[in-house]
Amino acid sequence: MNKQAILHIQDSQYCYALDPHTVQLMLRCAAEDTFDSVSVIYGNKYDYYKKRKKSDLTPAFSDGSFVYYTAKLKIKDVRFVYIFQLVYKGQVWYFSEDGLTADYDYKLAYYNSFQLPYINYADIMGTVDWMKDAVFYEIFVDRFCRASITKDDGYINLRWGRIPNPKSFAGGDLDGITLKLDYLRRLGVNALYLTPIFKSVSNHKYDISDYYSVDGMFGGREAFERLTEEAHRRGMKIILDAVFNHCSENLAQFKDVVEKGKNSPYFGWFIIDGDGIDSERANYEYFSLCKYMPKFNTSNPEVQNFLNGIATYWIREFDIDGWRLDVSDEVSHDYWRSFRKAVKAVKPDCVILGENWHDSYPYLRGDQFDGIMNYALTKACLDYFVNGVLDARGFADKLGGLYVRNTRQVNSMMLNLLDSHDTHRFYTVAGRDINKLVCALAVIYMHTGAPCIYYGTEVPLEGGYDPDCRRTMVWEGRRNTRLRRIIVRLGQLRKRREITEGDISFGAENGMFVLERVLKNKIRLTVNNGDGKPFTPEGRVLLSHNLGGGVLAQEGFVIEAVKAAKGGVNG
Amino acid sequence: MNKQAILHIQDSQYCYALDPHTVQLMLRCAAEDTFDSVSVIYGNKYDYYKKRKKSDLTPAFSDGSFVYYTAKLKIKDVRFVYIFQLVYKGQVWYFSEDGLTADYDYKLAYYNSFQLPYINYADIMGTVDWMKDAVFYEIFVDRFCRASITKDDGYINLRWGRIPNPKSFAGGDLDGITLKLDYLRRLGVNALYLTPIFKSVSNHKYDISDYYSVDGMFGGREAFERLTEEAHRRGMKIILDAVFNHCSENLAQFKDVVEKGKNSPYFGWFIIDGDGIDSERANYEYFSLCKYMPKFNTSNPEVQNFLNGIATYWIREFDIDGWRLDVSDEVSHDYWRSFRKAVKAVKPDCVILGENWHDSYPYLRGDQFDGIMNYALTKACLDYFVNGVLDARGFADKLGGLYVRNTRQVNSMMLNLLDSHDTHRFYTVAGRDINKLVCALAVIYMHTGAPCIYYGTEVPLEGGYDPDCRRTMVWEGRRNTRLRRIIVRLGQLRKRREITEGDISFGAENGMFVLERVLKNKIRLTVNNGDGKPFTPEGRVLLSHNLGGGVLAQEGFVIEAVKAAKGGVNG
Repeated sequence: MNKQAILHIQDSQYCYALDPHTVQLMLRCAAEDTFDSVSVIYGNKYDYYKKRKKSDLTPAFSDGSFVYYTAKLKIKDVRFVYIFQLVYKGQVWYFSEDGLTADYDYKLAYYNSFQLPYINYADIMGTVDWMKDAVFYEIFVDRFCRASITKDDGYINLRWGRIPNPKSFAGGDLDGITLKLDYLRRLGVNALYLTPIFKSVSNHKYDISDYYSVDGMFGGREAFERLTEEAHRRGMKIILDAVFNHCSENLAQFKDVVEKGKNSPYFGWFIIDGDGIDSERANYEYFSLCKYMPKFNTSNPEVQNFLNGIATYWIREFDIDGWRLDVSDEVSHDYWRSFRKAVKAVKPDCVILGENWHDSYPYLRGDQFDGIMNYALTKACLDYFVNGVLDARGFADKLGGLYVRNTRQVNSMMLNLLDSHDTHRFYTVAGRDINKLVCALAVIYMHTGAPCIYYGTEVPLEGGYDPDCRRTMVWEGRRNTRLRRIIVRLGQLRKRREITEGDISFGAENGMFVLERVLKNKIRLTVNNGDGKPFTPEGRVLLSHNLGGGVLAQEGFVIEAVKAAKGGVNG
Repeated sequence: MNKQAILHIQDSQYCYALDPHTVQLMLRCAAEDTFDSVSVIYGNKYDYYKKRKKSDLTPAFSDGSFVYYTAKLKIKDVRFVYIFQLVYKGQVWYFSEDGLTADYDYKLAYYNSFQLPYINYADIMGTVDWMKDAVFYEIFVDRFCRASITKDDGYINLRWGRIPNPKSFAGGDLDGITLKLDYLRRLGVNALYLTPIFKSVSNHKYDISDYYSVDGMFGGREAFERLTEEAHRRGMKIILDAVFNHCSENLAQFKDVVEKGKNSPYFGWFIIDGDGIDSERANYEYFSLCKYMPKFNTSNPEVQNFLNGIATYWIREFDIDGWRLDVSDEVSHDYWRSFRKAVKAVKPDCVILGENWHDSYPYLRGDQFDGIMNYALTKACLDYFVNGVLDARGFADKLGGLYVRNTRQVNSMMLNLLDSHDTHRFYTVAGRDINKLVCALAVIYMHTGAPCIYYGTEVPLEGGYDPDCRRTMVWEGRRNTRLRRIIVRLGQLRKRREITEGDISFGAENGMFVLERVLKNKIRLTVNNGDGKPFTPEGRVLLSHNLGGGVLAQEGFVIEAVKAAKGGVNG
């Protein structure tokens, strides 16, 4: 037994409440160790020394190095105390705060048991329920669709269909999106994520000069009013991009500091080395290498109030359904806590999604974000379907490892994407292989969390890194109807309760990746790496089952429903 | 190499900022693995792919199973990105979010490096500086000293010196403490922790019926005014006991609920199963098994405001220096975050100390408490000095394991105690062995964090579990002058910069436990388990060095200063 591989962290993703009387537990052990049993011995804080229950944990996830044993426990008392019992080759071991020991003295448990001392409901992370069957579509507004022919179009310098450069303006606007809502709905989309729409001189508008007005290029406030109204009328959600890490150098408050230096009331809003702005030295913090995007000092309570005012304004005025947080990992935890309080007070089911590319558990403990843009999953899909870095087993292990980073609640609110305005387009990286694209789409649609397809994926649109990934949408001419049909079909699948509610597991069989969603019945995705190789006979056999009357079988993947066997599924 | 033993958790006690330009790093490896080198390769988020630095980590702590390698890095840019490089038997390994790999592609680091993406000052945990040389004295007020002869003493039912029962009142009061301030100062005490002083019918007053009045038994508000004034005049700090988990059934708000049920505006302040209080069924949540102590619903914002009002009132009115939080682990994280904001806004150096007996990192991330009552250290001291469970090496490993649970800031604000009103007295458990007591005191005085001695330790007072550990203080008759002299001497030692500022390390030599505090010079404590066995010759040799003119040598321990050798100390 590899004793040093065993890990448990209390009051974390390894032990948390799903509701006041349900606790989700996890214990990590070495992948190569086989235990006779892994159990939890639990009870109430105040009488644990004399009264205890025991439940088994089962291996639920693997990341290649470790196996993660889990159990979901129903408890009556909310003062939850526990240790683990492991039986290895007939010998009994106990795992507590004191590590692995051959004995355990329950009378001294108040010193060294694990515990979730009291489950207060304020600490239980809730879920935004509409995320469960959400299908997102990310729109880079300037490039999606131009509707308004009345607006001043002097700023437009890119003909629709031409390749953009960093300074291109193609003329897409919010009315264009409204015009296409039915198109999107038919595609199975029920939630939109728009890149920034507030006043800004750039095409991407990540440098905002007025957070309270919708940019005229995009049609202004009225156009946004029409869009939110029409979207909501169709039951579609809209989330906006909150660029709260930095602003534009044209923001009034920054300009005031440029003018007045230390005498500006906004001096403390930015992070300045000196008594005033020295543009030449650029003696202030800014985003990345972009001096025209001064960083907000989000440690400053005044800035926090300013930003929370913006965050709640757009919810109150337009009932928006969520915020995607730009460069969220560079903003203080302290601010995001305050942001969450402000946002959730106004609209509890307003979803909060960070742009965090890395393991982001510190932001996902329930006091900050609901989920993040799941770029780690993006990378895994690239490594399996495109780069050949992962085989099916490796892909399953990678997805298992990503899943155990976070709680079940957070996993249900992830934004799962193959590409975005910040990456190459997946289709392009995949060498224009439609099979690889549909196989990867099948994975993100079947996963916990909401799939988010980048505008034009359904065409499919091509593009390398920014600005090439921001080409204009193709509305005319040849489009791939098979791809479109699959996306629609995957969207329908998302509504099944196995996928909105079920457990998830990852595996490999016959060299193919298998993802299962299990409630009572199972939905099972079997996928090779998209290169169109035929399924093995064993894979084919599975086709005999029915998925609500049909199996979704494509070159590269099969999705099928597996009815619960008599006695139920162990999943 | 035990690959599965390697652990790093970003944005945690394994990687955090000490100030905007200093990062403290830790990597855990198997104790038995010897590496050629362990390094961190780090840089700035935005140009890491082309520009990196490298620093070595050194083994700083061990807990028996693992060695913890640490490094303190000075960085210029606050967007800190890093991976580890381990060289084992000549082979180079990289450790990143992707685990241990033989290669690492820095061009893809934005997907899988570790990071502290931006060090915002609001997220850097500050320290309460006066804690660095604080020596606490915990007073159970009813039992320490009675001064007031004018107060109504009809409630007193225990003659001073007799053994108390759970219902005893001995008459100790706040003026009694004021009377003894000079006595305490001479003992080396500069901070008092008082068990609750607010209105309550019990002797312990953990069931409070009015949080805005000082109990008349203790002399009322005026007596507290005198105490705080006299203590502060002497440079002594006072921290009070915040009983915010529960109250007394006599609290007006609870009584209102008892009377009016669901029609009471305070119905939501408690956690009630039904439409009103059913005293027989006790259909409400309460502390432990004590139905007369109804639990507050600290998930309720109204309750949060009520409690924050109390917390800030006593700071504003009496300038108290800290709050010790009763049963703090059963109160919501959500509330403690709000509590910290409220308290620190009024008085930033008001210390916040939780009563958490277990590993409490989730409360000690900087958004809730400063430190906790270090009962895990208490247990370790018992296991080494009294129970014979740990030998010197085991004790060093245990203390190493406890230290790495938390950040350096938190470790500097721990309340290190051998006993309290909630435990047996250490002296009694130690079979009245003064050597064991002084040896254990030497450990907590030398440790990071503030020692806290329970009233009467210096006598030494005896006592088993509650109520026996709450005997009346002995002011007359035989008292141990040697014990007292050592406590005074240890208190003087606390002021040395090696102890207020220095690094700490734990080890074992010649069967004795060694604790070192290293700044430029070292202070070194060598201690056997207090059973008075003579030190080995090697131990004696160390006595030749001088500790500011003298070595503190007692049967059982030696404390000495070790001057920096030429070229400095490696510590």
